[in-house]
Amino acid sequence: MTSYIDLPLSGLEPPLSEMEELVQDNCHRFAEEVMRPVSAVLDEMTPEETLAPESPLWGVLEQAQELGLSVSGMLELDPQERSRLMLIAAEELAWGDGGLAGMILVSMMPALYSALAGNMEMVEYCEGKMGCWGITEPDHGSDTLDADGGLQAVDGDYGRPNCVARIEGDKIIINGQKSAWVSGGVTAQVCALYCHLEENGKTRPGVVAIVPLDGPGVTRGKPLDKTGLRSLNQGEIYFDNVEVPMSHLLAGPDNYVDMVYHTLAEANVHVANLAVGLARAAYEHALAYAHQRKQGGQAIIKHQNVKYRLFHMFRKVEAARALVRRVADYNATASRPALQGSIASKVNGTQTAFEVASDALQIFGGNGLSREYPMEKLLRDARACLIADGCNELLALKGGNLLVNPDLI
Amino acid sequence: MTSYIDLPLSGLEPPLSEMEELVQDNCHRFAEEVMRPVSAVLDEMTPEETLAPESPLWGVLEQAQELGLSVSGMLELDPQERSRLMLIAAEELAWGDGGLAGMILVSMMPALYSALAGNMEMVEYCEGKMGCWGITEPDHGSDTLDADGGLQAVDGDYGRPNCVARIEGDKIIINGQKSAWVSGGVTAQVCALYCHLEENGKTRPGVVAIVPLDGPGVTRGKPLDKTGLRSLNQGEIYFDNVEVPMSHLLAGPDNYVDMVYHTLAEANVHVANLAVGLARAAYEHALAYAHQRKQGGQAIIKHQNVKYRLFHMFRKVEAARALVRRVADYNATASRPALQGSIASKVNGTQTAFEVASDALQIFGGNGLSREYPMEKLLRDARACLIADGCNELLALKGGNLLVNPDLI
Amino acid sequence: MTSYIDLPLSGLEPPLSEMEELVQDNCHRFAEEVMRPVSAVLDEMTPEETLAPESPLWGVLEQAQELGLSVSGMLELDPQERSRLMLIAAEELAWGDGGLAGMILVSMMPALYSALAGNMEMVEYCEGKMGCWGITEPDHGSDTLDADGGLQAVDGDYGRPNCVARIEGDKIIINGQKSAWVSGGVTAQVCALYCHLEENGKTRPGVVAIVPLDGPGVTRGKPLDKTGLRSLNQGEIYFDNVEVPMSHLLAGPDNYVDMVYHTLAEANVHVANLAVGLARAAYEHALAYAHQRKQGGQAIIKHQNVKYRLFHMFRKVEAARALVRRVADYNATASRPALQGSIASKVNGTQTAFEVASDALQIFGGNGLSREYPMEKLLRDARACLIADGCNELLALKGGNLLVNPDLI
Amino acid sequence: MTSYIDLPLSGLEPPLSEMEELVQDNCHRFAEEVMRPVSAVLDEMTPEETLAPESPLWGVLEQAQELGLSVSGMLELDPQERSRLMLIAAEELAWGDGGLAGMILVSMMPALYSALAGNMEMVEYCEGKMGCWGITEPDHGSDTLDADGGLQAVDGDYGRPNCVARIEGDKIIINGQKSAWVSGGVTAQVCALYCHLEENGKTRPGVVAIVPLDGPGVTRGKPLDKTGLRSLNQGEIYFDNVEVPMSHLLAGPDNYVDMVYHTLAEANVHVANLAVGLARAAYEHALAYAHQRKQGGQAIIKHQNVKYRLFHMFRKVEAARALVRRVADYNATASRPALQGSIASKVNGTQTAFEVASDALQIFGGNGLSREYPMEKLLRDARACLIADGCNELLALKGGNLLVNPDLI
Repeated sequence: MTSYIDLPLSGLEPPLSEMEELVQDNCHRFAEEVMRPVSAVLDEMTPEETLAPESPLWGVLEQAQELGLSVSGMLELDPQERSRLMLIAAEELAWGDGGLAGMILVSMMPALYSALAGNMEMVEYCEGKMGCWGITEPDHGSDTLDADGGLQAVDGDYGRPNCVARIEGDKIIINGQKSAWVSGGVTAQVCALYCHLEENGKTRPGVVAIVPLDGPGVTRGKPLDKTGLRSLNQGEIYFDNVEVPMSHLLAGPDNYVDMVYHTLAEANVHVANLAVGLARAAYEHALAYAHQRKQGGQAIIKHQNVKYRLFHMFRKVEAARALVRRVADYNATASRPALQGSIASKVNGTQTAFEVASDALQIFGGNGLSREYPMEKLLRDARACLIADGCNELLALKGGNLLVNPDLI
Repeated sequence: MTSYIDLPLSGLEPPLSEMEELVQDNCHRFAEEVMRPVSAVLDEMTPEETLAPESPLWGVLEQAQELGLSVSGMLELDPQERSRLMLIAAEELAWGDGGLAGMILVSMMPALYSALAGNMEMVEYCEGKMGCWGITEPDHGSDTLDADGGLQAVDGDYGRPNCVARIEGDKIIINGQKSAWVSGGVTAQVCALYCHLEENGKTRPGVVAIVPLDGPGVTRGKPLDKTGLRSLNQGEIYFDNVEVPMSHLLAGPDNYVDMVYHTLAEANVHVANLAVGLARAAYEHALAYAHQRKQGGQAIIKHQNVKYRLFHMFRKVEAARALVRRVADYNATASRPALQGSIASKVNGTQTAFEVASDALQIFGGNGLSREYPMEKLLRDARACLIADGCNELLALKGGNLLVNPDLI
Repeated sequence: MTSYIDLPLSGLEPPLSEMEELVQDNCHRFAEEVMRPVSAVLDEMTPEETLAPESPLWGVLEQAQELGLSVSGMLELDPQERSRLMLIAAEELAWGDGGLAGMILVSMMPALYSALAGNMEMVEYCEGKMGCWGITEPDHGSDTLDADGGLQAVDGDYGRPNCVARIEGDKIIINGQKSAWVSGGVTAQVCALYCHLEENGKTRPGVVAIVPLDGPGVTRGKPLDKTGLRSLNQGEIYFDNVEVPMSHLLAGPDNYVDMVYHTLAEANVHVANLAVGLARAAYEHALAYAHQRKQGGQAIIKHQNVKYRLFHMFRKVEAARALVRRVADYNATASRPALQGSIASKVNGTQTAFEVASDALQIFGGNGLSREYPMEKLLRDARACLIADGCNELLALKGGNLLVNPDLI
Repeated sequence: MTSYIDLPLSGLEPPLSEMEELVQDNCHRFAEEVMRPVSAVLDEMTPEETLAPESPLWGVLEQAQELGLSVSGMLELDPQERSRLMLIAAEELAWGDGGLAGMILVSMMPALYSALAGNMEMVEYCEGKMGCWGITEPDHGSDTLDADGGLQAVDGDYGRPNCVARIEGDKIIINGQKSAWVSGGVTAQVCALYCHLEENGKTRPGVVAIVPLDGPGVTRGKPLDKTGLRSLNQGEIYFDNVEVPMSHLLAGPDNYVDMVYHTLAEANVHVANLAVGLARAAYEHALAYAHQRKQGGQAIIKHQNVKYRLFHMFRKVEAARALVRRVADYNATASRPALQGSIASKVNGTQTAFEVASDALQIFGGNGLSREYPMEKLLRDARACLIADGCNELLALKGGNLLVNPDLI
């Protein structure tokens, strides 16, 4: 009776600008035609095979260049437009494959963080190079995100960092290692490195610098064998007296805490958005399957219980996306981004992705568990997001800290 | 260390227009200074006392006039602006008191639905009168929202309606009753009546008409004694050969289903928004209390577990509001509103309000259960929203129906 | 086709002993015929009216005597039998009314705790008197349950207690106050008092003593006006140089921590069991209503969504009861009760009661919100249980502490 | 302060009998020493490798024989003892590896179902052979569990079965196929087959028969490649005029519905119990890791948030096990098992396993996602249980049907 409404790609989307529509369409086509076929193949490979010369990964990354997503291009837009456009583009890519979308995004991080620091020279230097964000360390997973020590127990002690930089004359000299969780760490050509500063035998936070990874003293670990986002390599980076000119410095001890704040405020929204893409992919698969699969003599979407569950998936995806967009809008227009907002979008979006992926898998019944169908991979990909860029519990505590008004205690 | 950010009234809000800011401020002041003090008093009264001449209810409603919220005024704005402004205003009112905000909103419904039907004469007729939406019937709670029968069991039968209209010449003649769940039903001067049409001894959906409630043949039930939103009266309306001129007709059988669709698409967003206001009030109370209350020698917001819970309340409120705003934006700009979106915002917002109210109450410990504190009333108010304007389960099934693409089955 | 199974009163109950069956039947009849009619009346009264001489409360308590539930009678059974019998009896009472069941249970607490301490003289002394458990203080809600300080922040400080006892010769002398959250505090004749010991101007935990409340120096606060369990009064007790003979001592500083441990291990299971009774009452109301109420032309239990929700209520009630019984069995047979088990049963049972009460209310639609139906009261009663005898979050942290194996750190 | 309690293997377990303790210890040792090392290896293999002659699977199954778990041995115990013992044994095996425990359990199913049918000849026939339960079909996943059609839509139609049996003289003749979801289907020597009966060209439920799978006319599909429980093979079985003597009949059309009822009532409890073993394994891994892993200068179990989460895992595992045990006790002693109870235990246990596995993985942070650690496999195993032996939603609807009292409608 009531006529069916065919919603836009990104759901309850108010009218897009012409440019937004163009970018969305391009990315969607790329996701559908290029990323999806390859992603299933990469998921089955060992981490080493994924990165071997004959891997289809490289073709995808090459073709992705043609999408024209560049940080310097984005910087020509006003902050609100830029933020919207990046989210619209990246959602389509994540809809195609979370791991490959992650590869494309992390590659842009050094340029993006350079932009956050206002260092246009480094933006230009990083543009077009495969990048990574090097912050997490073997003994300091969560600690590194807690640059101001706000979460440290009164009797706690974060202990010695695993990676430190010294400044000698006009050089930054780096020693130590970043842990296996560095996304893109195995393939990156350039690293946005966040580490402690060593001065007079003591260390403190910290230094942010753009470090090329093809020079002397840099070695890599082997790629991690992990459950989800398998097309996104992760691995250690080791530094042995690696030297970088001071022009590569994005932040020093005076503004390190602030730089981490802005970085996390930016990065968390992107992970949230990636999760929205994953969640939407899972929901759409389930919606389509529920139209095709028959049980009890009719398409299962006609069963009350199935349509009820699909509606809640739809609801969750829309709520997650709505929050991502609103937070990004706020951050792009406020004098200072609200990190608690970024975290809220990340926790909410990734939790949604995990729930929706599991609920969508369930619609497939036994087929949902089969590796012939895309659902179990989506669940593994979504599961990874609850930990990526800070496990949700640590982030929530960090977000909670930002709600404390010191004047009221 | 990291400086505290004092977020705007409505949270992660990108810059408001000057008018929006003015309306928000006015409504907030009214909510804080007028509504809140009275709401606690009304909550303790019997339903009859609430409506007695000496009740403080009347003063609040009178002062609310001065806020200048009128449907005809709103209609001068473009749809997107109008929609945003109404939501911004109503969130503040709901933050003040859910029941009183409900009273103010339902009063506007007849004019608003007249506008949906494009009947400007009736907008003008209703403006300034206390209104109500008369659809629910004793034997047809959920059924009435299912105007197209999409949820009806194959072997089900909605049976005889409790209220019917006949059309005789240029008059609509109404008989029967609407149930005790009509919000504002006891006090309304005018009713947007949705009922079945009786023709040749048979009935079918339906008729929408503006019915003045002060004429002959109309009687009322007594106000319902209920757990939450106690300042919003609900009660039966009985019709005994009530006559209304045809000029009061908003929809007949040809467009009845469509009129219900548009009405619900509009109304659900408003309930969702009201729930956001409630949830925010609960969160803010808990946040303030956590700064004041000490346990174990320090403000409880310093306890890891308390700040963790507060963060999740913040997150849920922001996600609920973000979805309300996005849905409203979509509906205001699309050629046809997406009812599944409106429902999603309602289910999500009211579920959030219930969870956040309960979580916020918990921060107060034993005081949360005491009637001296505002928390237990907020929980009762929030609980009512899970049923108001369609229980969430029925709505979710209705929303699920709208996801079915008939071309794919 | 498949024949319907009429489950026993307490659900999936393996065969009861003859005595258990008798007690269950008696309690059930009392709950149905005496408690339920009165509970609705008491819920509407002010706290003062509840305790006025003409209140029906007194009749219920008097008739409850005839059930023959006495601590000394119970002590003749072996621990496992005793524990089972108390739970079976109390579930029926809580099914009748949570507040009245609470009144009957707290009255037994001083005798029960005397038994825990092995003090049979005090068991006899307390038997037949209305009792209460006096531990919570205005500035020390959670702290009092943390007798060993295990939850104290490193830089925290529980500060000065509000109530202290001195020992002078063969007398215990008590000063200060217990807070408004003492269940039965307004009506109790005897109090199992848990407070700090004052020695040489310093205070430390602590003293447990049986204190008659009709002697000089004892005054009471007025009964608390609260949202749920309204038939169970709560109020402050003030002590001004109240003297008690040393024979009333149940524990001193050497075994105070242990006595609190055993007390909480016992009490938490009883609150859990009370919650199971509430949850079951809510479920049974919803099940019955779903057979009677028609929508869409058939009993709503025939709707897929309604039977689905009812099944999950059934499941939750059964799981909650199963855990209560298993924990009680373990504790009755182990050399030392596992407090983490008692807490698990309490957190699980009360969370279940709140969820099931809300889900059951929802089945009633608008009627669920009306004060004419029992559902909204059940929700308020259940909500109170999430805080009673320790808010669930604090208890969970305490339970978590007990999982730490000091040898492994 | 409060001394740490080292709980028994199966948690809050009241004293076990000597035999129970012996079986539990044996199974635990086998699980730890034999199953766990092999399970990680099998998980990495392709389904074909898992079943290749050199696979370590065969060694495990051979050694499992020495545990002495046989249906005929069990039948010598009284029903309550038998039921308890099987659950205690199987929990330990599932703790070792869910898939291998599944292999051991499904092998016993033909003998067990023969016992349900009171056919001791078939018990003896099946004993010692690898078995499977053949009920699910390509077009009839859920339908097959709905033998009485209670869930069928009024306008639904289950359509033609994929596998049918004819009875000719003293022979049962089978044609068609069972679907890829038959657990153990690739390796079974004997199948408890549940299918439709074909008479006069029409089909109806049904026939239960013990079918040897090494005779003429039986072929198999290749083992399914799936996400979890990978050591438990699943695959199609095809029947081409397979003949079985009438002595192999366990049920015909008169008692087919009842046989399915009893079978599901038995099987669901076993899946629930398997899930409890998985959940416990996940919880124990997380508990151990939280003692070892340091962050912020101390073992993470000292962090408030970590101990809070561990407590809730403990709580959920205990509640899930408590329900399994109670349901089994009820079913073993009642005149007719309560299928709604079995389903409740299955839905509850498997939901718990999934939640606890995910929560436990989260404690490991990034390591939880790595294939070097056991957590991500446990999550995949647990996910499979939400669908195995009936997806939880279908089961819940079936359970809901059993709550309908036909006399009350």
